[in-house]
Amino acid sequence: MRYELYYWPSIQGRGEFVRLALEAAGAEYIDVARESGRGKGVPAMMQLLEAAPGTRSAFAPPILKSGELLIAQTANILQYLGPRLNLVPKAEAGRIWAHQLQLTVTDFLAEIHDTHHPIANSLYYRDQKAEAKRRTKHFLAERLPKYLGYFENMLAANGVGRRCMVGRTLSYVDLSMFQLISGLHYAFPATMARAAADYPGLHDLHLHVTERPNVAAYLASKRRIPFNDNGIFRHYPELER
Amino acid sequence: MRYELYYWPSIQGRGEFVRLALEAAGAEYIDVARESGRGKGVPAMMQLLEAAPGTRSAFAPPILKSGELLIAQTANILQYLGPRLNLVPKAEAGRIWAHQLQLTVTDFLAEIHDTHHPIANSLYYRDQKAEAKRRTKHFLAERLPKYLGYFENMLAANGVGRRCMVGRTLSYVDLSMFQLISGLHYAFPATMARAAADYPGLHDLHLHVTERPNVAAYLASKRRIPFNDNGIFRHYPELER
Repeated sequence: MRYELYYWPSIQGRGEFVRLALEAAGAEYIDVARESGRGKGVPAMMQLLEAAPGTRSAFAPPILKSGELLIAQTANILQYLGPRLNLVPKAEAGRIWAHQLQLTVTDFLAEIHDTHHPIANSLYYRDQKAEAKRRTKHFLAERLPKYLGYFENMLAANGVGRRCMVGRTLSYVDLSMFQLISGLHYAFPATMARAAADYPGLHDLHLHVTERPNVAAYLASKRRIPFNDNGIFRHYPELER
Repeated sequence: MRYELYYWPSIQGRGEFVRLALEAAGAEYIDVARESGRGKGVPAMMQLLEAAPGTRSAFAPPILKSGELLIAQTANILQYLGPRLNLVPKAEAGRIWAHQLQLTVTDFLAEIHDTHHPIANSLYYRDQKAEAKRRTKHFLAERLPKYLGYFENMLAANGVGRRCMVGRTLSYVDLSMFQLISGLHYAFPATMARAAADYPGLHDLHLHVTERPNVAAYLASKRRIPFNDNGIFRHYPELER
């Protein structure tokens, strides 16, 4: 099966959670909007988003094409890929639990995004900077510790020294946790440096994921788009002060 | 199977999407935090949320107990209940599509919530009123039409005159759409009155769901908590002006 991923070509964004799963599993895929040529590039993605009236479409990317099936919503895509890429436990209870954690990642990501865009997506950051400072202050003091503390506890609940969130081997939740921790270090380096001691398990998991051969190869490749200030995780030093 | 639902007893909130599915299907369930007695009430819910270190817990309610299984995240719960309550198509493609729509409802709800809480959940509305006005202005002009327009198109894509979002019969997505439209009318009555003509299909679906016997009986009962200004949908007239 050769999958097709449709996502913005210049940011990691939500598509990165899908890229990481495909890369870690060594799956064959095309990152369609990043390629050029007939039926590729951003126009191909826009065509999926702006479907003709009367036909199904996605509200937003990422979109995965698997055979004839088009799937959107990051957690939905990962739930679909999980069993196919051997990135989730086989039993129903384990899959439900993994998806529950992934949906909590989704919620966290929306809050992370809104630290720099608390008023509107349609406005530039500079036009909502005062509100962004206020929101970020509360986010760093209240929400970040609440989410990371929760994930640290759930990691511990999975068993001592396992270095994975669910089951006994790497799952898509671990890859998402890696991406979360990486992004938070990029966006809020001082806060995350101070907080490292509070989340030793997540720190260890992050390192463990980084060192997996497929992940390490991906991170060193040009396929990994660097963090930048158009994505979910943005480094605006004034927000952290 | 007698299900147990754990959710805040005084608001509709995210729990209402689960309540509607259970009620519409005539399922047997206990709304645990709304009952009193040993092992019931809000303390029973808090016990699930504040699990002992080293054990699984949910990040937030609603939580569904089904036998020994505890499931959190609204869309995850509905995905689990869907086939069991006959509220989703049987084929995998239909279930994935229903879940994708439901996750888009989840995103929309978070944006609706943040119209009155754009800075922090931990602050009162009155302490973020200026920001709430600014966010709501953009929300009503940009996001509300984008989401409702999308859902109206996806309803049309399911076939003319079907009055359901997915497949040929009532699904949990229809119940969520009913709740969305109801809540938006409560929160933003002037905007929704003006917009009604733009979303004839959703308007019709809303009416159709309201008239289903199990739903009508539920809405007329004391089990249906009235909308109020502690939930996701809040009516602050100054935000709409």
